[in-house]
Amino acid sequence: MTGQQAPRTRARRKADTLAKLEGPVADCWVATADGATPYLVPLTLAWLRERIVLATDGNSRTARAITATGTARLGLGGTRDVVMIDVRLESVTAVNAAPDWLAEGYAGRADWDPRTAGDGYVFLVLAPDRIQAWREADEIPGRTLMRAGVWEC
Amino acid sequence: MTGQQAPRTRARRKADTLAKLEGPVADCWVATADGATPYLVPLTLAWLRERIVLATDGNSRTARAITATGTARLGLGGTRDVVMIDVRLESVTAVNAAPDWLAEGYAGRADWDPRTAGDGYVFLVLAPDRIQAWREADEIPGRTLMRAGVWEC
Repeated sequence: MTGQQAPRTRARRKADTLAKLEGPVADCWVATADGATPYLVPLTLAWLRERIVLATDGNSRTARAITATGTARLGLGGTRDVVMIDVRLESVTAVNAAPDWLAEGYAGRADWDPRTAGDGYVFLVLAPDRIQAWREADEIPGRTLMRAGVWEC
Repeated sequence: MTGQQAPRTRARRKADTLAKLEGPVADCWVATADGATPYLVPLTLAWLRERIVLATDGNSRTARAITATGTARLGLGGTRDVVMIDVRLESVTAVNAAPDWLAEGYAGRADWDPRTAGDGYVFLVLAPDRIQAWREADEIPGRTLMRAGVWEC
């Protein structure tokens, strides 16, 4: 993959990353591992209180794998304008028992309200641990914007 | 996620899936599992002889995980027009030792030639086991187009 423009500065990549996270209606690819079995699905996220919030059926493969392993890796954007985020699970909350900041916050960012989806749905609150952002090969250097939960730019 | 158009027929979804695979320059998200650790990266594929061919550094996390587990899950398309493909590893071949159908085939489909990337690069030849295609929630029914390596439409 070859670049067409000058590589972005790290500050620009952080701003672009936050814009992707803030949406409105930000979708991501959610990769999880259940033993040796990889799993991947697209889900809509909400970026609330510096956390990534997903909503899905608590019995889905994604929810079960994140609960079991405490981790996931998320991809946002197109394949040539990516943000990769390694997350750790902070909490799991039934949608119908969720506080307003979570339930109203998610519904306000996404284009659906998980509270209408049934009793089995949960919010997965995920803390970003590492964030990387790059477009093409020329942006591989300097792609790590956050390490151990701390922005480096 | 709510639909805006009528759900596609399964035949239409198969045709759309093959169009995505055939490219030119088809990118995909490659999810792998290394124990409990999920991994995810975008890579360019080539669809050759009914196989998905990836090219990457043999020491990359993706190559090592696929070699160790024999499996990966690929996502193509946007998050609201997805093709999900569960694959099993068929072979790993050093790019500089690859037969023409593989090396020329890959270079002809992708926008780069792995033979220029150095000695450590390999072709991963992946056999599709299950293929699913859907756009929005109304296309969840009927989304499985291939099972156990056999097209069902």
